[in-house]
Amino acid sequence: MEFYDYEARLNRPVKVKIPDFQTGERLNHIIFADQLTRTTLERLTRTADQIRVLAKSSEGARYLNDLLRHKRAMLYFTQPSTRTFLSFMAACQILGIACSEVRDPSTSSEAKGETPFDSMRMFSSYFDIVIMRSRIPQFAECCAYMMNDLRQTSRRSIPVVNGGAGADEHPTQALLDIYTIQRVLAFYHPRDSSHWTLFDELRERYPELRKGIDGKIFGFSGDIRRGRTIRSLATLLSQFDGVKLYFISPKHPKLALPQDFRIRLLNRGVEVREFHAFDELADGEPVIESLDCLYMTRIQREHNRPEDEEEFREIDFGKYRLNPKLVARMKPYAPILHPFPRDAEFGEIPTSIDNDPRAHYFRQARNGMWIRAALLAYLFDVDATINDYYANYTREVRDYNMSAL
Amino acid sequence: MEFYDYEARLNRPVKVKIPDFQTGERLNHIIFADQLTRTTLERLTRTADQIRVLAKSSEGARYLNDLLRHKRAMLYFTQPSTRTFLSFMAACQILGIACSEVRDPSTSSEAKGETPFDSMRMFSSYFDIVIMRSRIPQFAECCAYMMNDLRQTSRRSIPVVNGGAGADEHPTQALLDIYTIQRVLAFYHPRDSSHWTLFDELRERYPELRKGIDGKIFGFSGDIRRGRTIRSLATLLSQFDGVKLYFISPKHPKLALPQDFRIRLLNRGVEVREFHAFDELADGEPVIESLDCLYMTRIQREHNRPEDEEEFREIDFGKYRLNPKLVARMKPYAPILHPFPRDAEFGEIPTSIDNDPRAHYFRQARNGMWIRAALLAYLFDVDATINDYYANYTREVRDYNMSAL
Amino acid sequence: MEFYDYEARLNRPVKVKIPDFQTGERLNHIIFADQLTRTTLERLTRTADQIRVLAKSSEGARYLNDLLRHKRAMLYFTQPSTRTFLSFMAACQILGIACSEVRDPSTSSEAKGETPFDSMRMFSSYFDIVIMRSRIPQFAECCAYMMNDLRQTSRRSIPVVNGGAGADEHPTQALLDIYTIQRVLAFYHPRDSSHWTLFDELRERYPELRKGIDGKIFGFSGDIRRGRTIRSLATLLSQFDGVKLYFISPKHPKLALPQDFRIRLLNRGVEVREFHAFDELADGEPVIESLDCLYMTRIQREHNRPEDEEEFREIDFGKYRLNPKLVARMKPYAPILHPFPRDAEFGEIPTSIDNDPRAHYFRQARNGMWIRAALLAYLFDVDATINDYYANYTREVRDYNMSAL
Repeated sequence: MEFYDYEARLNRPVKVKIPDFQTGERLNHIIFADQLTRTTLERLTRTADQIRVLAKSSEGARYLNDLLRHKRAMLYFTQPSTRTFLSFMAACQILGIACSEVRDPSTSSEAKGETPFDSMRMFSSYFDIVIMRSRIPQFAECCAYMMNDLRQTSRRSIPVVNGGAGADEHPTQALLDIYTIQRVLAFYHPRDSSHWTLFDELRERYPELRKGIDGKIFGFSGDIRRGRTIRSLATLLSQFDGVKLYFISPKHPKLALPQDFRIRLLNRGVEVREFHAFDELADGEPVIESLDCLYMTRIQREHNRPEDEEEFREIDFGKYRLNPKLVARMKPYAPILHPFPRDAEFGEIPTSIDNDPRAHYFRQARNGMWIRAALLAYLFDVDATINDYYANYTREVRDYNMSAL
Repeated sequence: MEFYDYEARLNRPVKVKIPDFQTGERLNHIIFADQLTRTTLERLTRTADQIRVLAKSSEGARYLNDLLRHKRAMLYFTQPSTRTFLSFMAACQILGIACSEVRDPSTSSEAKGETPFDSMRMFSSYFDIVIMRSRIPQFAECCAYMMNDLRQTSRRSIPVVNGGAGADEHPTQALLDIYTIQRVLAFYHPRDSSHWTLFDELRERYPELRKGIDGKIFGFSGDIRRGRTIRSLATLLSQFDGVKLYFISPKHPKLALPQDFRIRLLNRGVEVREFHAFDELADGEPVIESLDCLYMTRIQREHNRPEDEEEFREIDFGKYRLNPKLVARMKPYAPILHPFPRDAEFGEIPTSIDNDPRAHYFRQARNGMWIRAALLAYLFDVDATINDYYANYTREVRDYNMSAL
Repeated sequence: MEFYDYEARLNRPVKVKIPDFQTGERLNHIIFADQLTRTTLERLTRTADQIRVLAKSSEGARYLNDLLRHKRAMLYFTQPSTRTFLSFMAACQILGIACSEVRDPSTSSEAKGETPFDSMRMFSSYFDIVIMRSRIPQFAECCAYMMNDLRQTSRRSIPVVNGGAGADEHPTQALLDIYTIQRVLAFYHPRDSSHWTLFDELRERYPELRKGIDGKIFGFSGDIRRGRTIRSLATLLSQFDGVKLYFISPKHPKLALPQDFRIRLLNRGVEVREFHAFDELADGEPVIESLDCLYMTRIQREHNRPEDEEEFREIDFGKYRLNPKLVARMKPYAPILHPFPRDAEFGEIPTSIDNDPRAHYFRQARNGMWIRAALLAYLFDVDATINDYYANYTREVRDYNMSAL
């Protein structure tokens, strides 16, 4: 197969494509954030919550580790990405999946004239799933089509997971972002009791506050246009009711919210606003103080072209750096997220903020491991098995604790 | 040790060397295709067939995965080879063997002045088997001698598997090739029944047709001289009765059948013929129509020297490209094989053939994983255990199906 | 965090630092050889001895392999080191620990402006232990401080193991060196019986000979100043009673024993002497004949500066090469060790010595795997479990042998 064989399918609108990647409600391949409906999100986050609890005990961790030890994953990351790569690797290891990797295309058969499609078909001969990140735009999508075509002719076909392709979307990053947001905006606190809950305390100050994502204000700051994580997360958030998305970036067209994406969000009934500083007013209040969640991103300087460098010199990038003073003005419960890596030289999030309770970016990384493990459990169809085991496990723990009274 | 320590042993004829790599009938190291007798081939293919059936069920796959989880393999591939590497890796993972790899000699201790023999001995300290591909000719063979010498002085010694060394042979590729050929030429078909079999149908058209490799005509096309896979496979095929080998290549001495190899094959009683186009006549019939199996190869352009480029310009390489018209003229059962990767730019096998039922090159790759798993099971002496489990497993499945009647 | 955040802690004397890396007697991080007291050494070597016995049987090997299969290790080796890397990897695999690796900093997030501290914190999100070797001096130590700080604020914290950092110490190399020395100087022999023991035989020739490290003479030859393995091993040896350390090196200040280290050893009550040839006299006897153990090292030419090359040309390096004649003059029981890789071009240990019974450098490498497995078992707190299993296991084997009488 060649790219042009898929051209007609690639050029369709996302909505039309989605049924190609699922059988009924069940997802076969993970290519777009748009595939992740609220129902699927709930299913995945429930499993992720259970996996993280089970993994705390040696018994639970060993149960998980035994679940998929007869499965093999290929991590095909020809575009470097330590973080996503290691997160998926750890997720596989949690479930006992054996991993192989191809990261350097120069050592691969592609140097001998092999097309990436032949490489992909080789992987599908040896492995049970391919998790991939490629420099080639829409390549993961093509691979999913190839797998579909193979299945239709009764040949071996395996699930494809998009680990972030080119400037495309990055659905599993969006998944971990929304999982993190949901956990924070559930307002549970380890010290919660019948006498005191964090949520009740917060409601004294914010009487309108509700649990969950619906109705919240989300700020995105930094490299809006080139940040595929923003695109994917905003897409997922647009499924929720009454959500407002505030984009804070330089005015430059290579960095600000692109018009097509703005329209796509508006069409989904989301309120979209653009700002160019944390201090601008939104409904009479400085943006930074109005947010329920702040999603920071790195200026992707490695994608700058020579002419960009020239034009960007005019921009006061300092406006898109966080600092302790700004953080102090944020709502006390509003999480600061960042897809990481952060850029220490640019300093969009200085380390002086790391100990602030609003700094959730390290927890966010660990959440990525749990939700990716949940996604793998779902794709290999063992998530219901985990749910059952968990129900039994927590009942036993509860019974044990009761009997100890 | 140094290379010259092994010189006398290296310079012996292959036949004389073979006993060095086995104890009685049992192979300790896999270095040459010539070691693989029909008896050993039968043993390995039986185990491979069993492993592939077992791996289909979760229970069987988990049984296999538990078999050798206390063993550790070193994949020492300083000459790049994604396909062979991943195939061995997957084979190890099927049996639960833990893998480590060394692929980049520049990051290894050899940069600090270490000899490859010291590296090898280090591997033998940490691992239970070494599977290797090196740029250094005959290095795998030397390593096997080193291990033999260590064993004779009661020191730690482990099996060495040649994963294709330099221009040398590639015994496990030959193994998977012959395994694929045997499966196709067994003429079993999923739709076979007491009323209909593929073989009976084929015999209406080819009354002389027999099952198996004996008496068949095998065509090899492309880079005959530099294709070590051809050399290894032809060697294995020469063990079978009445086999004819047709070599189809440009007339150039750097690409055609080398004289020494031709004589070696003739001495084994094989009928050898040379052609320069698929349309030349063999016993009055165009070659392409007479073949029972066609083995295509890639022109290994990376091994061209500047003077070759000059001379090769004269050659009409188009003659060594397959196309749907040629394929249509082949016997309906004759498998097309290719060791892969194929060269998309050169196009010896265009993708338009991939869906032809004669195209077996993708299945061939997957067969490689199964037969390598069988080889590892053999080397670690658990193949008999698998045979027993399989007998019991299929009896249970049969009993279950009977009881359901 | 940044380096300067740790500056005050880094600048303290080693002795003051040590409590930072342990809770009571229990080590949390392995950073310095100085942390390894005789009590801890005994604990680790006992476990290592048990692991090597258990690993000999399939049953024992499978028991070990199941112990920590729910744990995940990050091997973070941005300074190349095949040997230490693979040794740790094999040690993890023996205990069933799943491994991930980061070896090439250029493919890592550090290329996107990430600090190594952020990388480290990412690893601590995904993995249960980090084993590291970095080009950055004292980085492993800093990471251990970072983990301590995280633990103090109730955040996720994992053990850090120094796999040899820059010109710093290399505690696990020292561990395997001392483990090897202890095994050799225990003077056990497989042929020992009630009628004959190697030790009794040796005592006829050396009536003063005692078992163990106390009172022995250790020679170190080669690149004394730049050899961090020497520094670490000498530190460990200084804990034993009446030990003498002889350093044999060129007189050049970049290669000979540094003054500060000499003083440190003297302060610990060790007898330290310097020589410049194997033939110099020590108490009237040539050094080579007086040693109870000879530790050879490689001249680390990769650390030479242009001005060094000039000055080193004056040195007769031949004096620091071993040869069969020199070895023949050594005490018959005195082990020759080398941290490996050895430099074949320089030839500090020619291969002609490899078969001498005093050559222990290959066994030494394998010992490294066992003692590192013991260290991992200790850090994950399953060494006592192994001790119990071992006691039971050997009792069963003994009972079985008794019942067979």
